[in-house]
Amino acid sequence: MAELRDPERTPDTGDQDADDGLQASHRMLSFSDALLSIIATVMVLPVMHTKICPDQRLDSSTQRLLATRIAVYLMTFLIVTVAWAAHTRLFQVIGKADDTLALLNLVCMMTITFLPYTFSLMVTFPAEPLGIFLFCMCVIAIGAAQAVIVGYAFHFPHLLDPRVASSAHRAALQRHLLGALLRGPALCLAAALFSLLFFPVSYLLLVAVIILPYISKATGWCWERLRGPRELPSQRRDLFHFDLYEPLSKERVEAFSDGVYAIVATLLILDICEDNVPEPADVEGAFHGSLLAALGASGPRFLAYFGAFATVGLLWFAHHSLFLHVREATQPMGALNALALAFVGGLPLAYRQTSALARQPREELESIRVSCAIIFLAGTFQFATWTAALLRAGETLQPSVRFGGREHALMFAKLGLYPCASLAVFASTCFLSRFSTAIFHLMQIGAPCAFLLLRLLLRLALAALRGLQGPEPGGQGQGQAGGCSVEDARAQLLPDSC
Amino acid sequence: MAELRDPERTPDTGDQDADDGLQASHRMLSFSDALLSIIATVMVLPVMHTKICPDQRLDSSTQRLLATRIAVYLMTFLIVTVAWAAHTRLFQVIGKADDTLALLNLVCMMTITFLPYTFSLMVTFPAEPLGIFLFCMCVIAIGAAQAVIVGYAFHFPHLLDPRVASSAHRAALQRHLLGALLRGPALCLAAALFSLLFFPVSYLLLVAVIILPYISKATGWCWERLRGPRELPSQRRDLFHFDLYEPLSKERVEAFSDGVYAIVATLLILDICEDNVPEPADVEGAFHGSLLAALGASGPRFLAYFGAFATVGLLWFAHHSLFLHVREATQPMGALNALALAFVGGLPLAYRQTSALARQPREELESIRVSCAIIFLAGTFQFATWTAALLRAGETLQPSVRFGGREHALMFAKLGLYPCASLAVFASTCFLSRFSTAIFHLMQIGAPCAFLLLRLLLRLALAALRGLQGPEPGGQGQGQAGGCSVEDARAQLLPDSC
Repeated sequence: MAELRDPERTPDTGDQDADDGLQASHRMLSFSDALLSIIATVMVLPVMHTKICPDQRLDSSTQRLLATRIAVYLMTFLIVTVAWAAHTRLFQVIGKADDTLALLNLVCMMTITFLPYTFSLMVTFPAEPLGIFLFCMCVIAIGAAQAVIVGYAFHFPHLLDPRVASSAHRAALQRHLLGALLRGPALCLAAALFSLLFFPVSYLLLVAVIILPYISKATGWCWERLRGPRELPSQRRDLFHFDLYEPLSKERVEAFSDGVYAIVATLLILDICEDNVPEPADVEGAFHGSLLAALGASGPRFLAYFGAFATVGLLWFAHHSLFLHVREATQPMGALNALALAFVGGLPLAYRQTSALARQPREELESIRVSCAIIFLAGTFQFATWTAALLRAGETLQPSVRFGGREHALMFAKLGLYPCASLAVFASTCFLSRFSTAIFHLMQIGAPCAFLLLRLLLRLALAALRGLQGPEPGGQGQGQAGGCSVEDARAQLLPDSC
Repeated sequence: MAELRDPERTPDTGDQDADDGLQASHRMLSFSDALLSIIATVMVLPVMHTKICPDQRLDSSTQRLLATRIAVYLMTFLIVTVAWAAHTRLFQVIGKADDTLALLNLVCMMTITFLPYTFSLMVTFPAEPLGIFLFCMCVIAIGAAQAVIVGYAFHFPHLLDPRVASSAHRAALQRHLLGALLRGPALCLAAALFSLLFFPVSYLLLVAVIILPYISKATGWCWERLRGPRELPSQRRDLFHFDLYEPLSKERVEAFSDGVYAIVATLLILDICEDNVPEPADVEGAFHGSLLAALGASGPRFLAYFGAFATVGLLWFAHHSLFLHVREATQPMGALNALALAFVGGLPLAYRQTSALARQPREELESIRVSCAIIFLAGTFQFATWTAALLRAGETLQPSVRFGGREHALMFAKLGLYPCASLAVFASTCFLSRFSTAIFHLMQIGAPCAFLLLRLLLRLALAALRGLQGPEPGGQGQGQAGGCSVEDARAQLLPDSC
């Protein structure tokens, strides 16, 4: 075992830093992303598990309960997204982490996990000031934890991003960053005070906190469109690089989105496991001991499961295809992506509705329409993310998917498939209400085939192009050059797009 | 908007590949990791939600139900881990992905998500062959999907890892890989056939499938220890690099572990949100309209929540600290890490037990002992992962944490803290059973302080060392050089460790 005791100090990548107790913050951030995405999404579970007895119709009280919970879910999701965005900004300035920073980050995470609870208190007791007070305290605690992180990182500049650490305006940047981070908590402090006096004002202040970054961004964007880009003094431009207007880290947007898609897919199978393992007593009684018959009785639910998994999987696939060509994510893209994710998070609810509530024909129809609406909204916001990216294609997209790019049409088709299909199903339920379930399942199972066919059709078009040996005017067959030579394809397609 | 239509083809990193429809498989793999880790962990939910009425004692039928479900959870976790390990191996050979591969991977994921369901069927109906038949079919489907992926990737060699693509023995490697992947499904086919004839044999075959990789690894390892490393013919050695004996990808072990820790932390807050928002009617009735009093009544549960979050967070922190110094993960390390994760996944159950079942003093005592046991096992398997790494320190660890390394003592303390603390609490419950809850919560809340003090103490020792300006014989104060100059510390500490 002699060689084990030999402390050979080979120059290893990252070994030097690890020796210093430093660490690329990479893993801490992916853990935070996973945690936040799961917290945001998992709040749909209480909505899903609202008990509705088979003999009980969807009366107004149940509907109000459901609506309240869906509202809680959506608001929780957006609040956690705002917290996530602030966390992303913060760690774009801080490049490395040490143990203390990792522990401080855990404290920050713990405070964030408490937000959903205070929010559900607020919604359950809208007339009580206590919920809003706790919510505000929570936001203030998050702000305090983040301020401590900023203070710690600026105290040990080797933790900062090298560009920040070497900047001449470091102190100014710290003040600026603290100001940006504590703007929300300051508003919340005011809201907490008002909650003791006259709490309706607090709600207004809270709404302001949540939508503040988007409003400030939107006005800035409109301003730029109207007056041209702002001219900044040199110090401001240096700060500008690290403030709230900077593009979001693409990796973290991807990690957060992956977390959401993964947990949504898991909630589906969890539902199957919890509800669709028949009780031994039932099998004995109702199915004369035949497990196969018992499973056959819930056969449609398995079909619904596969359909729902395919939908989530393909929405992930479309997202993945899009972000493969994204260079950096701007704030409007982040906001639209968050909305798309919020609706993706609603899919398990849609699945549960289509499979469980579908007892009476009328309710079945309604639940399928709800599902279509959720899929439509999720797909449309994905598409909108792309549209937002196209508006600033020069910064945000890689050349091949910009206007006139080689894969522009394919991307359009990929992102447009689900909105169109769900809209078509929704429309068809109005005319062919008797077959709506069949049509819906057909769509869910047909979509993967459509994705594969999409590629085949585009490949065929490409092959036809090559067969003609000449550029077709206005040809839209700019498919992926999967198996064939890329240079060939580019040589033929560049004349069109230039 | 003219500049948007200009398809400028700047040479961008990864742009060329993205143009080819190729993509580093990185994001597909992190999505798969997230999905698999969540599926593995979330299966604890049905166990947690086993209804136990407040007036119902833990009688034998409830206990049997609980025990069955815990067994299902543990087996599901390990099965998903085995599937994850196979997936990791597969994508260590395949370096890049295109759209078809991403879709094939989704199919593979969908099949894997179905495993837990078939497994719970097996456990609920142990005397029925149908459950085991479906399970086998599922494994065969996974094998088939993976075989298609292998066939596709070897058909388009630009998808393979460059070392494989340029290897002279590519065809042999493909056969070898297919053999390794289909070994399990082949056994399952036999099990499926036996399930129709005489199903107890199937169970034996299935156990063989699950523990096959570990057995083959363990025997190989023992063989190597006894006879020295095996000599391989050159072709075999080439294959050896990519077969089942290769170290696991460290990034994927980290991603999988992060997913598990993140979902466990989330399940805790989900529980709080589902159960601890008081009903408006209750507040009116029992607490005379005072929400504060209602929340105060469940105050101990919040304490338990913070304690449980701190435990999960610090176990993640210990894991993170360990893997920061890991260069590559061997198979025994992967297996021990999986066991540690399985017990971490049991923590929400422990939390629920300590906070919900604690009505009668006797049960309270039992539930605290269960919690201690789970924390002890999770911590001990983490420690064992490190021990396994130390056995091959030359390959697996960075110099600073090997025997005699500068951070060896700190790592020892970090990983040993939880096993020791939980053991101490367990022992103290035997003597001081009346104060066991207080002691337990004290441990949970004291642990973060202990982690911080650990660093402070080690820093103090380091400062004392520096003050003395000479190396102390056998000094164990090899702390992290957080705030102070690293070179100073190294200059003082190298004489000890060399």
